Amino acid sequence: MADPLLYADTSHSADQLYFCRLYVPDPFISFAAGGKKYGVFNRLEFGRAQKESALDIVLPLESLLERAKSRWPDRKCGPAEIIALLAAEHKLTEFAVPQDFPVGLADQLRAHGLAIIVAEGAFFPAREIKTGDEARAIREGNRCAAAGIAAAERVLRASRIKGKKLFWRNATLTSERLKIAIETACLEAGGVSIDTIAAGGDQACDPHARGTGALRPQELIIVDVFPRVNKTGYHGDMTRTFLKGRAHDAQRGLVAAVRSAQKLALRRIRTGVSGRDVHGQVVAHFESLGYKTATSAAGSTGFFHGTGHGLGLEVHEPPRMGATADTALKKGAVVTVEPGLYYPGLGACRIEDVAHVTDDAPTLLSKYHYEWELR
Amino acid sequence: MADPLLYADTSHSADQLYFCRLYVPDPFISFAAGGKKYGVFNRLEFGRAQKESALDIVLPLESLLERAKSRWPDRKCGPAEIIALLAAEHKLTEFAVPQDFPVGLADQLRAHGLAIIVAEGAFFPAREIKTGDEARAIREGNRCAAAGIAAAERVLRASRIKGKKLFWRNATLTSERLKIAIETACLEAGGVSIDTIAAGGDQACDPHARGTGALRPQELIIVDVFPRVNKTGYHGDMTRTFLKGRAHDAQRGLVAAVRSAQKLALRRIRTGVSGRDVHGQVVAHFESLGYKTATSAAGSTGFFHGTGHGLGLEVHEPPRMGATADTALKKGAVVTVEPGLYYPGLGACRIEDVAHVTDDAPTLLSKYHYEWELR
Repeated sequence: MADPLLYADTSHSADQLYFCRLYVPDPFISFAAGGKKYGVFNRLEFGRAQKESALDIVLPLESLLERAKSRWPDRKCGPAEIIALLAAEHKLTEFAVPQDFPVGLADQLRAHGLAIIVAEGAFFPAREIKTGDEARAIREGNRCAAAGIAAAERVLRASRIKGKKLFWRNATLTSERLKIAIETACLEAGGVSIDTIAAGGDQACDPHARGTGALRPQELIIVDVFPRVNKTGYHGDMTRTFLKGRAHDAQRGLVAAVRSAQKLALRRIRTGVSGRDVHGQVVAHFESLGYKTATSAAGSTGFFHGTGHGLGLEVHEPPRMGATADTALKKGAVVTVEPGLYYPGLGACRIEDVAHVTDDAPTLLSKYHYEWELR
Repeated sequence: MADPLLYADTSHSADQLYFCRLYVPDPFISFAAGGKKYGVFNRLEFGRAQKESALDIVLPLESLLERAKSRWPDRKCGPAEIIALLAAEHKLTEFAVPQDFPVGLADQLRAHGLAIIVAEGAFFPAREIKTGDEARAIREGNRCAAAGIAAAERVLRASRIKGKKLFWRNATLTSERLKIAIETACLEAGGVSIDTIAAGGDQACDPHARGTGALRPQELIIVDVFPRVNKTGYHGDMTRTFLKGRAHDAQRGLVAAVRSAQKLALRRIRTGVSGRDVHGQVVAHFESLGYKTATSAAGSTGFFHGTGHGLGLEVHEPPRMGATADTALKKGAVVTVEPGLYYPGLGACRIEDVAHVTDDAPTLLSKYHYEWELR
């Protein structure tokens, strides 16, 4: 097996963060050779990389660049030449790279005579199996997410209904104001929540719409929070659906269906079960309750996303639990469990928790109550 | 020139966001053909893409995947097969892709007989030249950044000095607490600030250290805030250096040197000037004032990062102003101007504003005062 090679910054590449355990905002080289982990850093990052990273050997970019320039005086030297130099030094003729390794650099390395072997599937398969520390970091992420959801609940409870609007602190309660309350609570809990969803009514029928403008009483409001913990880089991911005021029967039916689908999925998830099967059972459950899924030119209604996805250094990572997820869940995988139903006119509901896969019932890594009708 | 092809999500690829003007958290295909912009979306994103994106034609992933499967029944079909199908339909035999296009997909497309031409330099060179709307969006980003810096100043002013610590709201003022105050203010101003720096004393001598633990009186504290505006995706990026208490002469000298270096750089920046020259003049200025730069095994001291970088949909983007920046500044480019000096024992100072390049003096897109000694 070829030694791994990465060229990325850690905000764009979770593989790089996983390998080096250091935040670096600009792309840098890392690789393994002879069982040791190497990284190449410029002066700006060198000291911090030596002190804080998980690398065995930290090399200075500037002197390697000088050496590359004297080796190839007629060329504009960059990462490709530095990697070629290091490969020669370590007697390496090939590297394994992830699917998302930059093609520009790969082409240059191939021109230098190096074999660049693209990994099939995950680059670090171990990332899919969460250690105890990783599970704790994800639980911490969900503690941040729950702080955000609790803030949303507090704001909705404290809001007053005036006609078709909600008022909070003497102003119309909007998705934007609710998101600020959520994200502030996440910050105070030690995480950063980006692209938070706080969408009501028909807006929430687009599952990735973040929500904008006034929130209204008597309508379902989806609150989906996926913060990154500052200290570790791991994420939480939780969703609750609230309603301020009094729900009608169709709304209650919708929420009950989603919650029962989530419980069903949680009963099915364990080592060796395929993500497609879990998803299929959720789909069948909704069908059996009369909640149909349809797609037309106007868009989709019903349940038209996956039941869940892996969670860790990325918000979306393997394994998937959806219609095309053909691999079995591995012991130690961490997945979201988030069925939802979306019907313009009636509204939308999604409920999301996070499960750690075991040989038996999964361990929940998220915790928040399911009360949703806020009077 | 080959038509552009992208495969990325919009949080990892600013090119994708620039092309489609839609937030999508999972990778998707976009391309141009016959002067029209196309995107391929799954059911989850389709409706939102139709309503909100800047694309001319939005195609449904699911039906394209079905067609690919009937064309290649023996293969596991994915983005490569869908792109091959679309290329055949539009009679395209080649695509231009950015440097960071995923090599895994590029290899598959080449195996399908498509020529994949990797762009040299920026994929959308127009991104470097900011329109009036983009400059306004960056100014808005800096309004968020300034709200964060103002929050830091308020907290420091309100803190009390007790021995070698600062106290705020009855507890030790730490980098972590100061960052929460900064990031909350950014949220309320409409942006999200990640990896905010609030580092004091020797910690700040590592320019990318974010800061941890107690902040102290009489030491220089670097506050560097680079929020993304929620509505537009554009960033601000500002830095101020504060000191709570009374500075001594060496600290005052350091801050004055950095501020004069920034003014010098701002006087030099205009259309056609090379980023290397601007940087070289800052380096020479520091040298002339006796502030030496050195690198040893223990790390670097003095001024050892670039003078500035382009700012837009990414925090770091072209053009650069540093020792290896060999291209001239273009009219309409937006760059940070952020000289700094770092000396463990004495401390560190960086002052950063944002300039819009014109044929004459640059227009400042950031605004905050330079008072720094907070009694």
